[in-house]
Amino acid sequence: MALFLLLAMILSRMANNLDDIFAALSDPTRRAVIARLGTGEAPVSDLAAPHDMALPSFLKHIKTLERAGLVQTRKIGRTRICTLHPEALAVAENWLDQQHEIWVGKLDRLDAYLNKDQME
Amino acid sequence: MALFLLLAMILSRMANNLDDIFAALSDPTRRAVIARLGTGEAPVSDLAAPHDMALPSFLKHIKTLERAGLVQTRKIGRTRICTLHPEALAVAENWLDQQHEIWVGKLDRLDAYLNKDQME
Repeated sequence: MALFLLLAMILSRMANNLDDIFAALSDPTRRAVIARLGTGEAPVSDLAAPHDMALPSFLKHIKTLERAGLVQTRKIGRTRICTLHPEALAVAENWLDQQHEIWVGKLDRLDAYLNKDQME
Repeated sequence: MALFLLLAMILSRMANNLDDIFAALSDPTRRAVIARLGTGEAPVSDLAAPHDMALPSFLKHIKTLERAGLVQTRKIGRTRICTLHPEALAVAENWLDQQHEIWVGKLDRLDAYLNKDQME
């Protein structure tokens, strides 16, 4: 029973995480930050520079990315450094791959069915 | 100039689409509908059955999926049939694949740098 509850908690946590990850990816500023961090960690001020918005608005985007587990931040003196956490991107990739497999599996079954039809 | 405007329009359309697609994927009911439709088209009533919500609420989810281009619907008599439109899922997959390549490229460069260091 305890194991079942633990499993249910983990599954629910993963599902919540997918909600947060996909929601975080639904904004062009946040996607640009992810693409930039893919090339290496960066201070918040560097990440904010190309975006035409006030710093508090930009920090909200960083918070959303952090909450989704896509970005980790740490302070060095007065500078906040952001790092990409690619494991969270992999969670989204895995979900999409699963859908791809379901879809391709369906086409394979259709193909097999049509070939069987031709053979008979 | 006209070509530039057209290109800007196409790029902006693609970006909007990514916003809509990722936002559509950020909900467990909508992800369940996509997973179900991966195995074949289905009437709205069949899709709604496993979900404990009023039909108007469920129809809002279908509208969100339709707007993002993930699902197409058509009416046969009084039944609305939903079909998965996997090309829209591929748009999200492509974006994630690009990030993956940026990230892996960075690791490869780091690896090459460290190996060079060892050789010297």
